[in-house]
Amino acid sequence: MELAKRRGFLWPSFELYGGISGFYDFGPLGTILKNKILEKWREHFVKKEGALEIDSPTLTPEEVFRASGHVEHFVDLMSECRKCGQPFKVSELVKEKTGLDVEGKPAGEVERLLREKGITCPECGGELGRVFEFNTMFKTTIGPGGKKVGYLRPETAQGIFVDFRRLWRHGRERLPLPVAQIGKGYRNEISPRQGVIRLREFTMAELEVFFDPKNPSHPSFERVAGEKLRLWRAEDQLKGEEKTVEVSAREAVQKGMICNELMAYYLVLTKKFLLDLGLPEERLRFREQTPGQRAHYSKETWDAEVKTERFGWVEVAGIAYRTNYDLSRHAEASGEDLSVVLQPDRRKEICHVVEPSFGIDRIFYCVLETAHLQGKKGLKFKRELSPIEVGVFPLLRRDGLPEKAKEIAELLKEKGFWVEYDEAGSIGRRYARADEVGTPYCVTIDHLTLSDNTVTIRERETAKQIRVHLDKLPSVLSSLIRGELEFEKAGIPLEKEEEGKEEEEGKEG
Amino acid sequence: MELAKRRGFLWPSFELYGGISGFYDFGPLGTILKNKILEKWREHFVKKEGALEIDSPTLTPEEVFRASGHVEHFVDLMSECRKCGQPFKVSELVKEKTGLDVEGKPAGEVERLLREKGITCPECGGELGRVFEFNTMFKTTIGPGGKKVGYLRPETAQGIFVDFRRLWRHGRERLPLPVAQIGKGYRNEISPRQGVIRLREFTMAELEVFFDPKNPSHPSFERVAGEKLRLWRAEDQLKGEEKTVEVSAREAVQKGMICNELMAYYLVLTKKFLLDLGLPEERLRFREQTPGQRAHYSKETWDAEVKTERFGWVEVAGIAYRTNYDLSRHAEASGEDLSVVLQPDRRKEICHVVEPSFGIDRIFYCVLETAHLQGKKGLKFKRELSPIEVGVFPLLRRDGLPEKAKEIAELLKEKGFWVEYDEAGSIGRRYARADEVGTPYCVTIDHLTLSDNTVTIRERETAKQIRVHLDKLPSVLSSLIRGELEFEKAGIPLEKEEEGKEEEEGKEG
Repeated sequence: MELAKRRGFLWPSFELYGGISGFYDFGPLGTILKNKILEKWREHFVKKEGALEIDSPTLTPEEVFRASGHVEHFVDLMSECRKCGQPFKVSELVKEKTGLDVEGKPAGEVERLLREKGITCPECGGELGRVFEFNTMFKTTIGPGGKKVGYLRPETAQGIFVDFRRLWRHGRERLPLPVAQIGKGYRNEISPRQGVIRLREFTMAELEVFFDPKNPSHPSFERVAGEKLRLWRAEDQLKGEEKTVEVSAREAVQKGMICNELMAYYLVLTKKFLLDLGLPEERLRFREQTPGQRAHYSKETWDAEVKTERFGWVEVAGIAYRTNYDLSRHAEASGEDLSVVLQPDRRKEICHVVEPSFGIDRIFYCVLETAHLQGKKGLKFKRELSPIEVGVFPLLRRDGLPEKAKEIAELLKEKGFWVEYDEAGSIGRRYARADEVGTPYCVTIDHLTLSDNTVTIRERETAKQIRVHLDKLPSVLSSLIRGELEFEKAGIPLEKEEEGKEEEEGKEG
Repeated sequence: MELAKRRGFLWPSFELYGGISGFYDFGPLGTILKNKILEKWREHFVKKEGALEIDSPTLTPEEVFRASGHVEHFVDLMSECRKCGQPFKVSELVKEKTGLDVEGKPAGEVERLLREKGITCPECGGELGRVFEFNTMFKTTIGPGGKKVGYLRPETAQGIFVDFRRLWRHGRERLPLPVAQIGKGYRNEISPRQGVIRLREFTMAELEVFFDPKNPSHPSFERVAGEKLRLWRAEDQLKGEEKTVEVSAREAVQKGMICNELMAYYLVLTKKFLLDLGLPEERLRFREQTPGQRAHYSKETWDAEVKTERFGWVEVAGIAYRTNYDLSRHAEASGEDLSVVLQPDRRKEICHVVEPSFGIDRIFYCVLETAHLQGKKGLKFKRELSPIEVGVFPLLRRDGLPEKAKEIAELLKEKGFWVEYDEAGSIGRRYARADEVGTPYCVTIDHLTLSDNTVTIRERETAKQIRVHLDKLPSVLSSLIRGELEFEKAGIPLEKEEEGKEEEEGKEG
């Protein structure tokens, strides 16, 4: 996290005013990385899947969350210290002190447990007050007068549900109908203490997949049915066993481990997406939520978990079978008919929904931690995720080399690369700086460049160098970054001596 | 707007519950278009300029907006009808009824004007009540207890100012230092009535360019100094003259029309960006804000305006000279030293700021309206902005053509194109549907494709067709979309008869 702060990935927000927990800024490199993760998500879940993506407001009138059950159910149990006044999220406190999971239990029962176990304020030892429900949506009012209550959405999903009829027509009344949304979500956490893992404002990417409950199949299931999934089932968790099984998606459906084909399809897609970010397969698993842990709308939920060094297993996505809960509730609350005519038997029915939902900030953290663990000399990202894709350096700060180098940097920016031009310090130091933030390729401009238009490309991982003509530079770099080309075949490999000589020269710069 | 709704560009939000003014959803095509506009912005203002981009929270503790002056100054004058209770934004009402601009005038003075002019409630004719200041930030509380007040940010800028010290170091202490942020902004409008032109939740793209007040130059100014700018100066507005002058950026600075080189530089960049979205140059101008119109932090502001059919001239961006106002205020409020050492004389000083700020929803509207005005058969976007870039159609719904067409659609999606596969209805109807939403190219798969792997590409604008081999399809489409290749030279042009024949055949499908 020190490196992350220092190199501009993540900063605690509002530090100038002492900070406020649960908020983080993405710095310059962090913003590029986050956007790249979102683009990958869009590629996997929207573009390739032919999903519809919408973008609805974060600020939402109360009616919507009354209907969805969030006004009633989106609560955490809370208690304040009678002595120092510190507020606590009781389920976290109980888990820390006793290991027990009281998620979803009624307030009275949890309060009795607090007393029984003698749990007191971890700050001052004071007695804890009454345990009560705290709604964790941020509340405001819309328009003047203060009468129209609004909430900041805790999930992007409701914006999709309330648009269902327009989406159904736009999707030409075919099922399954996947609809995506990427955007901010908010949760007024009682006392968040885990950095970007528990934020009060976070970025989500969600898909609501509408389908016929009598036909929960996916047209492309066969393409992925052989993929293996590592599952930690609820029944094993309830027995206290940390035992996962490895089965194919097909087998998981056939044996009833996963409730239907669509759920299994999206578990596979989730796995593929996470692997495509460079997360190691051995650190991924799917954990089935136990009945007590599931949200009020869910019949079955699988969490995708990533094992981190700092926080242990972290939930980064949830694939929930929301049934027809949301559409039914909105139909009832609005008085509008949200059922559709389903084929082939022309039933009128309300669609069911499978929802893969991703916490982008947590995924960001996992990608960053992985880059940190895998890189010997700083961060090592999967090449295409590196915030800076190409460093451009003049070997010396004279003889027209900076001008030529800037020209090449401009050219590469025009072609769409994320480029950093750097002329400060010896070439060795510049390589080291680029290595630290994970820049996979550095282009060096030297005297030879001026006469024959060739440049040196250095590869981060091996420190090997090749010589390439400027005409080919953009296409070579682009193929290298996408991993479509072997480095040493991308140009003329340089001898060790030449490297050494350049290093020496670079020091004068 | 009817077409925009029907074809999935824009929908009023929360329609299911009767809607709420000031909120719009971007539908499936609208979301793609909006994201493409944001990507263009990022290309122009971040990537090519080497700006730092950050991403900070929308929810912000009160201290920040106390320091920035928003708690005090971010107000609209408001009045409610004594009879029907309807609230009004008084400046709008006065402008509608009298043409007078009372923006920035004190409440008492405006109230007297209301009485003098006999302005009453436009809804029921009732008497209007007291005129008072209404702060248009959305307010909430952070954490439990309700004591920590927070606001939804009205601009992304403050997130950048409070991070100044980290940004200064990350940018290696060089000026000018451009820092960007893209994200949501919020304004609790009293009674918004102009669709996406006046939203309560909107998307902004802002740049804060920090510079040395003694050296307001830009290293690349010479590159753009010859560009013409159409300016409507404040002095001419105050004289009541709608007279613009057309001058080069260099001339505008030399003659003191624009206060410094950096401001002029970003006016040019703004113009280039708007033109790159396909907006016609004759519908652009820069209007200087009169002293009364300027925000509390600004010394000079130029609004980029686009002439629309529906709303007249619309402000889509503002380029404001914010001086050192914000950094000074934050230094004072936080007690931290935000000055830096400036070269060459090693003065300690607080940086000044030029801020180009863009309203993305308004730009979106202008792009959409332009596409509507320019397209004879539906929307005509600049090709690369089209939400669907390629339609893929099997000529018939049999003989293996759909399978082959789906395979080609998959291939193009893999290559990153926005693709719509369509097999419903005659080929003519499918072309018409694609034409309506502005899809620039449609690829048709026919019997010949199965034997020789060639396909037909049809160009939207001319309805001309060429025949291209599958191997070349992605690169040809990509060059066509970027406007780098002439259509008839991109493949073998088809004869009219062949086209006719295909049309006929397609109807059987």
